Amino acid sequence: MSDRPVSRFPFPDVGNLPEDVRARILKVQEKSGFVPNVFLVLARRPDEFRAFFAYLDALMEKESGLTKGEREMIVVATSGLNDCLYCVVAHGAVLRIREKNPLLADQIATNYRSADITPRQKAMLDFAAKVSLRAHEVDDADVEALRRHGFSLEDVWDIGAISAFFAMSNRMASLTNMRPNDEFYSLGRIPKV
Amino acid sequence: MSDRPVSRFPFPDVGNLPEDVRARILKVQEKSGFVPNVFLVLARRPDEFRAFFAYLDALMEKESGLTKGEREMIVVATSGLNDCLYCVVAHGAVLRIREKNPLLADQIATNYRSADITPRQKAMLDFAAKVSLRAHEVDDADVEALRRHGFSLEDVWDIGAISAFFAMSNRMASLTNMRPNDEFYSLGRIPKV
Amino acid sequence: MSDRPVSRFPFPDVGNLPEDVRARILKVQEKSGFVPNVFLVLARRPDEFRAFFAYLDALMEKESGLTKGEREMIVVATSGLNDCLYCVVAHGAVLRIREKNPLLADQIATNYRSADITPRQKAMLDFAAKVSLRAHEVDDADVEALRRHGFSLEDVWDIGAISAFFAMSNRMASLTNMRPNDEFYSLGRIPKV
Amino acid sequence: MSDRPVSRFPFPDVGNLPEDVRARILKVQEKSGFVPNVFLVLARRPDEFRAFFAYLDALMEKESGLTKGEREMIVVATSGLNDCLYCVVAHGAVLRIREKNPLLADQIATNYRSADITPRQKAMLDFAAKVSLRAHEVDDADVEALRRHGFSLEDVWDIGAISAFFAMSNRMASLTNMRPNDEFYSLGRIPKV
Amino acid sequence: MSDRPVSRFPFPDVGNLPEDVRARILKVQEKSGFVPNVFLVLARRPDEFRAFFAYLDALMEKESGLTKGEREMIVVATSGLNDCLYCVVAHGAVLRIREKNPLLADQIATNYRSADITPRQKAMLDFAAKVSLRAHEVDDADVEALRRHGFSLEDVWDIGAISAFFAMSNRMASLTNMRPNDEFYSLGRIPKV
Amino acid sequence: MSDRPVSRFPFPDVGNLPEDVRARILKVQEKSGFVPNVFLVLARRPDEFRAFFAYLDALMEKESGLTKGEREMIVVATSGLNDCLYCVVAHGAVLRIREKNPLLADQIATNYRSADITPRQKAMLDFAAKVSLRAHEVDDADVEALRRHGFSLEDVWDIGAISAFFAMSNRMASLTNMRPNDEFYSLGRIPKV
Repeated sequence: MSDRPVSRFPFPDVGNLPEDVRARILKVQEKSGFVPNVFLVLARRPDEFRAFFAYLDALMEKESGLTKGEREMIVVATSGLNDCLYCVVAHGAVLRIREKNPLLADQIATNYRSADITPRQKAMLDFAAKVSLRAHEVDDADVEALRRHGFSLEDVWDIGAISAFFAMSNRMASLTNMRPNDEFYSLGRIPKV
Repeated sequence: MSDRPVSRFPFPDVGNLPEDVRARILKVQEKSGFVPNVFLVLARRPDEFRAFFAYLDALMEKESGLTKGEREMIVVATSGLNDCLYCVVAHGAVLRIREKNPLLADQIATNYRSADITPRQKAMLDFAAKVSLRAHEVDDADVEALRRHGFSLEDVWDIGAISAFFAMSNRMASLTNMRPNDEFYSLGRIPKV
Repeated sequence: MSDRPVSRFPFPDVGNLPEDVRARILKVQEKSGFVPNVFLVLARRPDEFRAFFAYLDALMEKESGLTKGEREMIVVATSGLNDCLYCVVAHGAVLRIREKNPLLADQIATNYRSADITPRQKAMLDFAAKVSLRAHEVDDADVEALRRHGFSLEDVWDIGAISAFFAMSNRMASLTNMRPNDEFYSLGRIPKV
Repeated sequence: MSDRPVSRFPFPDVGNLPEDVRARILKVQEKSGFVPNVFLVLARRPDEFRAFFAYLDALMEKESGLTKGEREMIVVATSGLNDCLYCVVAHGAVLRIREKNPLLADQIATNYRSADITPRQKAMLDFAAKVSLRAHEVDDADVEALRRHGFSLEDVWDIGAISAFFAMSNRMASLTNMRPNDEFYSLGRIPKV
Repeated sequence: MSDRPVSRFPFPDVGNLPEDVRARILKVQEKSGFVPNVFLVLARRPDEFRAFFAYLDALMEKESGLTKGEREMIVVATSGLNDCLYCVVAHGAVLRIREKNPLLADQIATNYRSADITPRQKAMLDFAAKVSLRAHEVDDADVEALRRHGFSLEDVWDIGAISAFFAMSNRMASLTNMRPNDEFYSLGRIPKV
Repeated sequence: MSDRPVSRFPFPDVGNLPEDVRARILKVQEKSGFVPNVFLVLARRPDEFRAFFAYLDALMEKESGLTKGEREMIVVATSGLNDCLYCVVAHGAVLRIREKNPLLADQIATNYRSADITPRQKAMLDFAAKVSLRAHEVDDADVEALRRHGFSLEDVWDIGAISAFFAMSNRMASLTNMRPNDEFYSLGRIPKV
């Protein structure tokens, strides 16, 4: 129902895109039933597109001490802190699906301190928030606080790197005034029977 | 699905409440099908309860140059700025219903600058945000900016007073760690056929 | 000596006000010798006027674990943080009178950390300041810190609710550019002999 | 009535101070009827004492396009922005006396935007506030704005330099936890008949 | 001379790295005479390493309406705003070399408003700073301001995307406590004769 | 190589200055080989000039529990926090010379938390930063933290007073748009053989 343009920048005809870029777009369309606008908006710069999604995959799809749901929590929490509409709405949908919880994304996007999460997850989001908002103050005591909650040093990297990546992603969405697809708003809100 | 307590403070048995407080609660239950937690949380202080809802009614139910939907936009935008979970979720539901728009509340709660609203509504929310975040800098030029968008002086009062009232309401929700009812999250998301 | 208008908004002739509103104004005039401008400024909206003062009375006049002077400390401290001239000046006068101390209001309005108050009162104002400035970060540890100073859970509510109410009141005063009556500036400065 | 120590640091016996420092202290005592605590607190470091007051005199006592009252407005406004109790209270008294206005200091200390001052004085305090809070953003446009209000380039220097000096002075008062003398609170509040 | 560890995280033996990662490292070593620590610190995550440098190349090495020196100005300015030691020192060196100017990097890192740059470059850095610090407020007026300085829409993307990328990069450097190589500090300071 | 004017304000012919001011300028020129611009910029106000440098000498040249290098660390760290180009560049040079360390100034100016300093020096800069950025929150616990690192009460004064003085000095440099001499940028970067 949103009639705002997809982006402040013009975007290309998918048919004219380099083969690999087009393939990636068609694949996500097949899987999701629609093309998330971030693919269209970034496709005008194929090299940046490739690097962006390679980086995203490297952080979000790999094996990790964090579940995929927890990684989405980091995305949604930090995107909320950065007031980034696209990332809150799109990754909110993914979080609902990953966690099979229709409430969690709205909670974490608004104020993760009020969310139905474990103390360990709260500590994870405290660290992610610090990396997002005042990374220059991160120190060894922050790392130790995570270790006390059972996070490995690799987990610390994952938490921080996801927060850092979305510091970039949020700014790209704001720069381009990227519109979330209408589909995202309702995805995962009603648990399938 | 949230199992967090309704509030950081104990709350009373509805059966033991003063007659008028209980009546108000039963009335909203009849209308909505559930009792929004704000009624339960505030009911332990009947005098504050009465004043709170009288004030809310005086601002939100009366005749105004602002539509009821626009007034909810102010609530959702400023509650988002204040990271107030209860008010974002509960009034987000009301906004979806008032505007018959399942997307608008998430947009305005995250970043009203990216929302599908008119320039006039954007000016309204700019003013509401200023009252919410740095009221001590409000000056005649702000009022004039609203007037140029066609708002009357009474409208200016309404915008500012709603923002001010929810500055209080947001803080009460945070003070009490008020939990939004699960029902609110999905209300108004799927337009009725 | 201030010749600034009482408010950015026009205000009504007291003679034309609803009976109960007028009665409240005459009563305060009789008690104080003048009509505090907040009564005149809010009277143009009788329903809001009634709710505002009912709420104020419910918080400031009732029995409480906080003395009336301590409640005024909360008002003055948070109004100072919000740079609200009307509330600092008007409630500064009340605080001087309540505490029979001509210095305390200026201290608390400027920097409560430098004021002649007890450690318990300092903790009370730390909490009130947090509710005023970043309520979304209030957590159980804050409540426990107050409990260790001997505050009951009801006292915690009172401190937070007064801070929340004046978050609204400060914004109404800034919205309306409410002028403090000249009388307030000197009230309570010289202890009566 | 304040029983807080004069300073966080010990201070010397006036009788043991270097002759010129003691003379300055006796002179202010003779003129004011009491010794403002800033003299006692800084006297433990005679070289810093001499430089501090020489600088203060160079800015506040010399001929200037700004009246002495206007210079005190700058002191009170910026000290209020820095939440500095000593400077707000002590220079508030001087401002009341200079301007023969018992209300102005409280207005300017709380929120100079609400004070009974001229637009020219408002522009002066806007610039002083910028120098105090974000000097690194001062640019030629700020200077030109002052010039349009009739300030000379020398006046611009005076406004900025007074704001800068009290950026230091406020920090010294906070560092030392300098207590304002009780006398300051009431000085100039009641116009002499 | 710095004896601080290269990173808070252990880093791998270059000999054990995947062939392409090692090749990239050897290439930069050959070109620069040393291996910038960012290569060592990120190499422990080869997939992230590849994506990071592919993205960096896509932004910094391609044809653009911005000179390579101007792109480094954006890096240094935003890294300074984020207090990121590694990026200020390493890219400061690159900026000195690109612009053949030994002073510019220190100026831009400290306060680009005081730097020896053109008004067009100042506008470029104003926009980059906004993307870095409050991207959620970027609007069409910001884009138009750049257009008036002759920047194309592609240039706007470049400025914003470089600022966004280093929002990530700065956070990675802070997360890992990445130490700048000693060599960077002096590079480009003395123009070669 | 910088061709920006030395200051936003005109400055006097050294030949026409009062004898003592001129003597001071000639002395620094003899010692340094050039006249640091701060001397030229402040000389137009001889009384302020005298007080400024007397104060500076009283803090920076006297016997102290802090080495001269440590005092320059305070100057560079707080000037970095205030984004003051002149002070970062000029005192960065002095710090390099005092500490015979070509890297330290850039580290401390960008983010003292990442600098090669001792925990005691880190505590010193934490306190200096608090005095610089939020002096109104300094309390006895801050002083005790310094004492635990072995600082005497006189050292606490020195740290705070140097931070306070440069709060002023930074603002004077920004007010006047003071240009650092080109010489400062390279001084002390290459240890003499």
